[in-house]
Amino acid sequence: MRIGVLTAGGDCPGLNAVIRSVVHRALTGHDDEVIGFEDGFKGLLDGHFRPLDLNAVSGILARGGTILGSARLERNRLREAAESAPDLARQYGIDVLIPIGGEGTLTAARMLSDAGMPVVGVPKTIDNDISSTDRTFGFDTAVGVATEAMDRLKTTAESHQRVMVVEVMGRHAGWIALESGMAGGAHGICLPERPFQVDDLVKMVEERFARGKKFAVICVAEGAHPAEGSMDYKKGEIDQFGHERFQGIGNQLAVELERRLGKEARPVILGHVQRGGTPTAYDRVLATRFGWHAVEAAHRGQFGRMTALRGTNVEMVPLAEAVTQLKTVPEDRIREAESVF
Amino acid sequence: MRIGVLTAGGDCPGLNAVIRSVVHRALTGHDDEVIGFEDGFKGLLDGHFRPLDLNAVSGILARGGTILGSARLERNRLREAAESAPDLARQYGIDVLIPIGGEGTLTAARMLSDAGMPVVGVPKTIDNDISSTDRTFGFDTAVGVATEAMDRLKTTAESHQRVMVVEVMGRHAGWIALESGMAGGAHGICLPERPFQVDDLVKMVEERFARGKKFAVICVAEGAHPAEGSMDYKKGEIDQFGHERFQGIGNQLAVELERRLGKEARPVILGHVQRGGTPTAYDRVLATRFGWHAVEAAHRGQFGRMTALRGTNVEMVPLAEAVTQLKTVPEDRIREAESVF
Amino acid sequence: MRIGVLTAGGDCPGLNAVIRSVVHRALTGHDDEVIGFEDGFKGLLDGHFRPLDLNAVSGILARGGTILGSARLERNRLREAAESAPDLARQYGIDVLIPIGGEGTLTAARMLSDAGMPVVGVPKTIDNDISSTDRTFGFDTAVGVATEAMDRLKTTAESHQRVMVVEVMGRHAGWIALESGMAGGAHGICLPERPFQVDDLVKMVEERFARGKKFAVICVAEGAHPAEGSMDYKKGEIDQFGHERFQGIGNQLAVELERRLGKEARPVILGHVQRGGTPTAYDRVLATRFGWHAVEAAHRGQFGRMTALRGTNVEMVPLAEAVTQLKTVPEDRIREAESVF
Amino acid sequence: MRIGVLTAGGDCPGLNAVIRSVVHRALTGHDDEVIGFEDGFKGLLDGHFRPLDLNAVSGILARGGTILGSARLERNRLREAAESAPDLARQYGIDVLIPIGGEGTLTAARMLSDAGMPVVGVPKTIDNDISSTDRTFGFDTAVGVATEAMDRLKTTAESHQRVMVVEVMGRHAGWIALESGMAGGAHGICLPERPFQVDDLVKMVEERFARGKKFAVICVAEGAHPAEGSMDYKKGEIDQFGHERFQGIGNQLAVELERRLGKEARPVILGHVQRGGTPTAYDRVLATRFGWHAVEAAHRGQFGRMTALRGTNVEMVPLAEAVTQLKTVPEDRIREAESVF
Repeated sequence: MRIGVLTAGGDCPGLNAVIRSVVHRALTGHDDEVIGFEDGFKGLLDGHFRPLDLNAVSGILARGGTILGSARLERNRLREAAESAPDLARQYGIDVLIPIGGEGTLTAARMLSDAGMPVVGVPKTIDNDISSTDRTFGFDTAVGVATEAMDRLKTTAESHQRVMVVEVMGRHAGWIALESGMAGGAHGICLPERPFQVDDLVKMVEERFARGKKFAVICVAEGAHPAEGSMDYKKGEIDQFGHERFQGIGNQLAVELERRLGKEARPVILGHVQRGGTPTAYDRVLATRFGWHAVEAAHRGQFGRMTALRGTNVEMVPLAEAVTQLKTVPEDRIREAESVF
Repeated sequence: MRIGVLTAGGDCPGLNAVIRSVVHRALTGHDDEVIGFEDGFKGLLDGHFRPLDLNAVSGILARGGTILGSARLERNRLREAAESAPDLARQYGIDVLIPIGGEGTLTAARMLSDAGMPVVGVPKTIDNDISSTDRTFGFDTAVGVATEAMDRLKTTAESHQRVMVVEVMGRHAGWIALESGMAGGAHGICLPERPFQVDDLVKMVEERFARGKKFAVICVAEGAHPAEGSMDYKKGEIDQFGHERFQGIGNQLAVELERRLGKEARPVILGHVQRGGTPTAYDRVLATRFGWHAVEAAHRGQFGRMTALRGTNVEMVPLAEAVTQLKTVPEDRIREAESVF
Repeated sequence: MRIGVLTAGGDCPGLNAVIRSVVHRALTGHDDEVIGFEDGFKGLLDGHFRPLDLNAVSGILARGGTILGSARLERNRLREAAESAPDLARQYGIDVLIPIGGEGTLTAARMLSDAGMPVVGVPKTIDNDISSTDRTFGFDTAVGVATEAMDRLKTTAESHQRVMVVEVMGRHAGWIALESGMAGGAHGICLPERPFQVDDLVKMVEERFARGKKFAVICVAEGAHPAEGSMDYKKGEIDQFGHERFQGIGNQLAVELERRLGKEARPVILGHVQRGGTPTAYDRVLATRFGWHAVEAAHRGQFGRMTALRGTNVEMVPLAEAVTQLKTVPEDRIREAESVF
Repeated sequence: MRIGVLTAGGDCPGLNAVIRSVVHRALTGHDDEVIGFEDGFKGLLDGHFRPLDLNAVSGILARGGTILGSARLERNRLREAAESAPDLARQYGIDVLIPIGGEGTLTAARMLSDAGMPVVGVPKTIDNDISSTDRTFGFDTAVGVATEAMDRLKTTAESHQRVMVVEVMGRHAGWIALESGMAGGAHGICLPERPFQVDDLVKMVEERFARGKKFAVICVAEGAHPAEGSMDYKKGEIDQFGHERFQGIGNQLAVELERRLGKEARPVILGHVQRGGTPTAYDRVLATRFGWHAVEAAHRGQFGRMTALRGTNVEMVPLAEAVTQLKTVPEDRIREAESVF
């Protein structure tokens, strides 16, 4: 069998572990060949690829990033590509394409699959917001980085009687904020799933100070927003690459809290450190398993599906199922976190 | 409601996080009181306990060990205690006992429960070998520590053309060896579940050297053992506390490999560093959730049960179910790991 | 001997290690008593203090922050205090005051000393900018945190063809930027000591992209600024606590580079994570040695001095010497770093 | 200028950072060529080398091990080589050889230098026992690893009322034990420099238990040994590679303490994890500076010397000076540590 593999979308710790696992399983478990397309779907369309043997993936298990690169591709180029999907597969002589990516990538994968290309997807997102899989690799690493930052900030906040507002990633789903907030012992957690009341945060901080705990750490997902009328809040300027500049919710909330509390409130915007670097053991294992199962699924002819963690098992689920809706934090998970505020 | 909590058995990162979560949920989510028994069941029998309020659990989330202590108790003292279980509960005025512990503790918990004490258990083991829960807290930390060690050993092995034999914990189940071996990129993994052939390891190393990869890392669970006739192997001397001295399988395997290969093979016995210290974010979250759900279960009157992770949910399962058999590594999980050897 | 100890100024990993060491040496090496003033000089003036015995400092060696707290004090209150310095010492019955702090604290210490109070200072700053000591504790931790962040950002930058601008602490001296930039393998380092040319950075990035290295990491001290005419740059709004809001040099430089390069340039502002949390082994050792030597100096009557690392020795240097000028990065250290850009 | 570089001796975090720095400085600061000999002096004698350009050293700054490899060489082969040293240099067309290594390597370097080869040495040892340099890279990483292990063991020891005996590296000098013992808060530290009395350790532990601190951590250098008559102690069996098997001082001391105290005492032998893996920021900076200065010294014609840290400066010192005697821990450094026991 000849397998094509590519990585697309934002960085995510564990990408290299999947690539390595695909190559290892394909070459040692079967007698396959593997080629890697460079810079995501771009490499697929432009014919940039290279063969991947055991040496090519040596030493990458613990490395962040992706040896195959990743780049943006305009949506219409991809749509055109979909039309000639079977030709593409023939052109490279591949029997299956294994795209590793997030929601956008999986949607594209589904398009190609529907158009007749044999595809087995591997879901990837640090945000953990893909339906039909209990967890995605990269998420554990992101939560770990954010938690370590909160561990550090907590001692400072305590010694210096400060409020710390830590903004973590999560535009549409608050999983990172939820779990790093719980693990880091945040006293307040703000998620995109539920508009927050600034009054509640103010009250929480004041009650803490009143009982002698003269500090607080508040963990805010970048996609969290205040409840209507709760505070003045406006989106910042958007740059040419679609990123908001400086004025994220973390910064604005710190200013607001400082104003209302009359106490020092400092923002810390963790940003990209959450999505790079060496993956945790958990993410390496999950990524390795996903790679292994993707190859096995290909050999069983289970196309149009992607790997998914269900309990302790890795199962193959339809791509269609995965991309129809975002997995957000349900109410009962929020409730669990509230008592540790 | 008045809740008694205790920790028993070996150390496990996350114990303090459970205690903290029980106290937080009980005091802020309900209007409960919590007392903590010292040194496990010993404190319960000897009447050593102290009240736990929010201040008592402040700052312990990220701390290893247990603020309540843990000590061994002879089995017959416990059996006697079970006979007067309802009296014990009355004596302390507790409406529920939440014991946090491993297989031995949960068996004791079941005994007390059968004897009429209201009990809600919380499972704990770094070995991850308790049935009916997908994962236990402490395991992720242990795997993380072992993986980091292997990351370090790998560069040394490679630069200095050595075989490294890393012995990790796991007397009856090989979960730590399996996952840290996968995450650390070990070239051989030996588990208690399946006797290993020294010949296979020798062959693997020689093939690696032959194709220019002049090093190997082998991850061995302390409970792994060679297949009949595969190598000379005898148990070491046992000390008064039941521990084997020095001559564990890691040390003996390194000697054997050195002899057969004529190449340097060095053992590294990770030992207790795997079960101490600050828990990973994953373990803190799981421990916190277990504590929360234990309190909720108590309020719902779900006694004789323990918390268990099932998929992404925490559910309450009968204690009886949990302690009847060990959860060992199934064949298909071993197969996943083999291709990354 | 009766010793008073206090911590003042911003947070710095290692403060607790000094306090612990002072108490240990005083109580076990001598037969002293130690009291700790709360919230810096505020506790000294307001009479808030507590006795410190071995139990009081148990378990704090590895903990960030300061168990004694730290708070701002208006300069004139301190000046008044200086006038009655000998009375203050008498009032508390202390034979020596050991203030642990940065430049401001040491200046105050000198004032008190000149006014007749027996003082032995311990220098503290994550910025490493105090003259007469080779290093200060806290600095190594700050550099470590910044380096780890750059390690993570580098893989992301590489896989996703980005420029990362990492802003680290250092308002007047660029030590953190210099050393974390070197350790993190930054391709450009901007220090307060030498205005930077945006053109040089643009050229460096373009040259890298030209030879196939399609990413760059630039490490910028918060106090760095562009050379005259090099780019539009203005200080941000200052809040009531004296902090600049959002528009630090890191953010502005990223915008400027993105504009000029036409490539994605993302800022990461590390902020307070650099100054909190558990100290590195290096900082714990240095802090412990400083505490030990401060007590010894007190017993030798070496007042008006502070501990200083000189080579491998800890020596006592006049407070006057320490606070007259800032230790900035000399030209030859900058030159060493340039070849690794 | 044409520069030859090689790494010899045991593994040490920072080797790759030196290689990278030599190449960067030589190629971008000057217009040099660099070749790397493989597997230490073996490559020099056998003619195994490869050119090193910027790409060859890309991404290795943070990686443990050495990309050039390192292997043992019989002493007489080296002695023969020394006789034809000038020919060797001519043969490869190198104007200078930069060997990076420990005491053995530097002695060899001196032999080659005396025989007429232009040599600039770079000292390397995790043990920090080379005279004439304040510190060597690798040491900080080793201390960091050992400290982290002690942090983890301490919480376990405390919760479970145990004595932990941690054996760290240091055959002839106790620097790692001294600094990791101080940083990890060990209650006893045993160094090669001063035979220890088991009685003192027993007394210390008993006193701790008596005042309610029912645990202790003892940090032992592998080269430490009991005072005459203090305990039964014999060296273990030596294997064909010169390593002692299992029965190191850590293991034997734990058995002895357990016997005398009647309390559980568990050994942890950290072993090779201390000398592998990614270097700390401190070690990366020092290694990078050493590489830079080695190239500069070569250009100034300062042969027969090696780089050395003196205070905050890197200076060139005669090789002869460096290898005449081991730098052991002086009495006053031991005294500083005692009060924190």
